[in-house]
Amino acid sequence: MSTQKSPQKSPNTNPQFDRVALIGLGLIGSSLSHAIRRGGLAKHIAGHARSERTRAKAVELRLVDSIHADPASAVKDADLVIICSPVGTYAEIGAAIRGSLKPGAILSDVGSVKQAVIRDLGPNVPDGVHFVPGHPIAGTEHSGPESGFATLFDGRWCILTPPPGTDAAATDKMIAFWRACGSQVEVMEAGHHDKTLAITSHLPHLIAYTIVGTVADLEDATQSEVIKFSASGFRDFTRIAASDPVMWRDVFLNNRDAVLEMLGRFAEDLTALQRAIRWGEGDKLEALFTRTRAIRRGIIDAKQA
Amino acid sequence: MSTQKSPQKSPNTNPQFDRVALIGLGLIGSSLSHAIRRGGLAKHIAGHARSERTRAKAVELRLVDSIHADPASAVKDADLVIICSPVGTYAEIGAAIRGSLKPGAILSDVGSVKQAVIRDLGPNVPDGVHFVPGHPIAGTEHSGPESGFATLFDGRWCILTPPPGTDAAATDKMIAFWRACGSQVEVMEAGHHDKTLAITSHLPHLIAYTIVGTVADLEDATQSEVIKFSASGFRDFTRIAASDPVMWRDVFLNNRDAVLEMLGRFAEDLTALQRAIRWGEGDKLEALFTRTRAIRRGIIDAKQA
Repeated sequence: MSTQKSPQKSPNTNPQFDRVALIGLGLIGSSLSHAIRRGGLAKHIAGHARSERTRAKAVELRLVDSIHADPASAVKDADLVIICSPVGTYAEIGAAIRGSLKPGAILSDVGSVKQAVIRDLGPNVPDGVHFVPGHPIAGTEHSGPESGFATLFDGRWCILTPPPGTDAAATDKMIAFWRACGSQVEVMEAGHHDKTLAITSHLPHLIAYTIVGTVADLEDATQSEVIKFSASGFRDFTRIAASDPVMWRDVFLNNRDAVLEMLGRFAEDLTALQRAIRWGEGDKLEALFTRTRAIRRGIIDAKQA
Repeated sequence: MSTQKSPQKSPNTNPQFDRVALIGLGLIGSSLSHAIRRGGLAKHIAGHARSERTRAKAVELRLVDSIHADPASAVKDADLVIICSPVGTYAEIGAAIRGSLKPGAILSDVGSVKQAVIRDLGPNVPDGVHFVPGHPIAGTEHSGPESGFATLFDGRWCILTPPPGTDAAATDKMIAFWRACGSQVEVMEAGHHDKTLAITSHLPHLIAYTIVGTVADLEDATQSEVIKFSASGFRDFTRIAASDPVMWRDVFLNNRDAVLEMLGRFAEDLTALQRAIRWGEGDKLEALFTRTRAIRRGIIDAKQA
């Protein structure tokens, strides 16, 4: 595993790629378009989106130089193809584009899970095409082509998980690309990525979705009071639980083992805390609540607060 | 239950009280001092803190006009006494001050639970003293006399839970006081407060403490990666889980039934979601993740986002 720090200044204004194809134009795809424009990183951005509405919006917002209803048409002649749609669509997209990928092109993505991506997309990568899966750790609770912005990746991490044997030059090009988009880049093994993200991202989202769902099941009068007094803690969970439903469904279905493992640990810990409350074990509660402060300090020290 | 909207402008600069006593000078007590000074709401602020360090700091920061190692001495001649220490200390404080409360004085507090406060403090309230428990829904993850600031309560809710039979004029004075501190005020029954806060505040804190504790139990190498990539969701939980350990221990011990009830519902919902992930039931996941968005919209519409 290696870490490369990215200087945030002076993005590259020489095109790194003649033609970039963005397959999917939601929050991440549209933000990538803005970041590519900002850095002058491509001469031409080709775009594909499944829905007619998104394609029309992408043209209206000038996110793309050409728009394609057929993903195979979008990737034609592209030097870099980035799949930015929910992970559950990858197998179908891979089958659709495999015959149209340009020899020497780089195929990448932005999915929140990486082993499943290699499983679904890997077999569709033709010889001579370089496969460098990626995951920018950046986002907001908003979705769709209107929600993107150029600075989304600035100062945030992007993890690349090239499978063993990937051409080092292709990986280097993707490192340079993400740095030019404003990110810091880390390269790691796909399985390690999935385990790490299961705890930093997938479990927190799962818990946030659950508690907001618990409130959604309360009677209406109670619910409106919960909303009124939400600033006392609950509010922070609702932002996370407003993230894109289809994207997150696919994350949980495609990182099942790591998520269930972390969820199991969390559930045990929650049960232990529940028992301590029931039996009035104040010392156990205070000990845990004191330990958790150290983690917060670590995040502040790492400048991630 | 009644709601009174507070105009946020022109705080009262005529003293509402000759002498206010603050029992406890942590985040809330010190913020109250700043807000009282800002509004010119008292001629004299008397303060008590249990620790010598806090008392010295309070004098140094000019939070108080007089400082008292003995709470009974602090409340002497005070027209308004506000207990701002962890809820677990109330019974002891009540016994200590009961003989020194001035006839006609108002006794209030800022505790996050209200039925237990009425249980612990109520029997110590002498005839002729008005008991108006309160809970300002405001805070940060910081603690101690240095962490307070004058605007903490601005635009936030303060809930008052006067027991049946409380003098209406005393309740009105406390409504005016909190409005002058910048808050909106709502009056409700103590049991209703405790149920509402169990879901809006206590359960979210419990869950945040749990997941941060789960991470604290991971091996060191994993933990440092979790911190590094915490911006992907986990970070939002650590802020909540950095709140004062003793205060929160006392909240859970003193609102046990309501917290266990809500925790039970949450745990059931989490188990159902776990099962859906294990069995690959994507439709169930997507349906829940879609429902939770409506709650977020409610919070945005209520201007609590």
